[in-house]
Amino acid sequence: MARPSMKQQIIEAGLAELHARGYAACSVADITKAAGAPKGSFYNHFASKEDFAVEAVRRYFEIAGWPASFESTSAVARLRAGFTALADGARDRAYSRGCMWGNLANEVADHSAAIRGELAEGLDAWSAIVTELVAQAQRAGEISHLGDPAPVGRFIVNAWEGALTRSRVVRSSQPIDDFFELIFGALLTRDERPTRTPGAP
Amino acid sequence: MARPSMKQQIIEAGLAELHARGYAACSVADITKAAGAPKGSFYNHFASKEDFAVEAVRRYFEIAGWPASFESTSAVARLRAGFTALADGARDRAYSRGCMWGNLANEVADHSAAIRGELAEGLDAWSAIVTELVAQAQRAGEISHLGDPAPVGRFIVNAWEGALTRSRVVRSSQPIDDFFELIFGALLTRDERPTRTPGAP
Repeated sequence: MARPSMKQQIIEAGLAELHARGYAACSVADITKAAGAPKGSFYNHFASKEDFAVEAVRRYFEIAGWPASFESTSAVARLRAGFTALADGARDRAYSRGCMWGNLANEVADHSAAIRGELAEGLDAWSAIVTELVAQAQRAGEISHLGDPAPVGRFIVNAWEGALTRSRVVRSSQPIDDFFELIFGALLTRDERPTRTPGAP
Repeated sequence: MARPSMKQQIIEAGLAELHARGYAACSVADITKAAGAPKGSFYNHFASKEDFAVEAVRRYFEIAGWPASFESTSAVARLRAGFTALADGARDRAYSRGCMWGNLANEVADHSAAIRGELAEGLDAWSAIVTELVAQAQRAGEISHLGDPAPVGRFIVNAWEGALTRSRVVRSSQPIDDFFELIFGALLTRDERPTRTPGAP
């Protein structure tokens, strides 16, 4: 396997610093120190800290913990497995750090069009994955009553981000438990009433 | 009416700076300049920037735009009016700035127990207001099938925070529209929703 380039090494090690410290509090020196790289080498690869952050945002989803493949054949179960993996990661970090995308959205989105654009793309791509699972669950009759799956997918992603933010504040799983209870116990459920025959009076 | 004390003046003017700039990027000089106060006077009223932020978090809900009273007698309509007022505020700010609580939760909660504690209290108090409206709506038969209203109230608050964060990224009302569609069009509805699964994690 090829050795990661110095640029990849800086992105991967620096991403963890950026995630843990936040944008303003994470210096170029923090990033290069974490990567074991000379500080001067940073500017061989990135025009600025902002440029580095754009690349870190692009790379983040791959390492954030959403499973690349799922065992279950139920679309709702696969969706639950995705969020369970994220919840396990949050628990392992003692509900610190949050989601790097959410952090940067709140800290830097107003001030950097480049970072904001990359965050929008990342969140759209993730929402599309969730939307596709919702659509599959609808087609399979696992859930009902929710209409167009696109707003549902975006809403679920945003509700997760909000739950994770709250979990940092209370340092417990409660907001994540609430998310699972309401999303999987109320929103993504199947109507238990007898199926209405189309065209029946 | 009594003239606001210098301390109150610093909190109110400084809070807007803290909200707009974020914690790390907002200096004591920014705060006192916004308040028209000599920089040295800051430390007559606050032990530190952290101490100031705790007071700003405490004061925030009063000015964040949640209506103090509602005209409607329907609890769901009152809940919708509360979030509509917040949505109007977000639109007026062109979806910049977000929620100061959410911002500080993501930027500082890991690093300051004092700010984290105040954020937890603020979010709990707001969640209690939402929970009470959900409970009233349940008692009035406006909504059904949602069981214990406390997780519902917390979930709605957290989902709002996530929607507002996403609206900063996309600079549009779409995430807020999604929130209204899913919360008021799917979750808080009457008899149209399937029964909540007891004990769902």
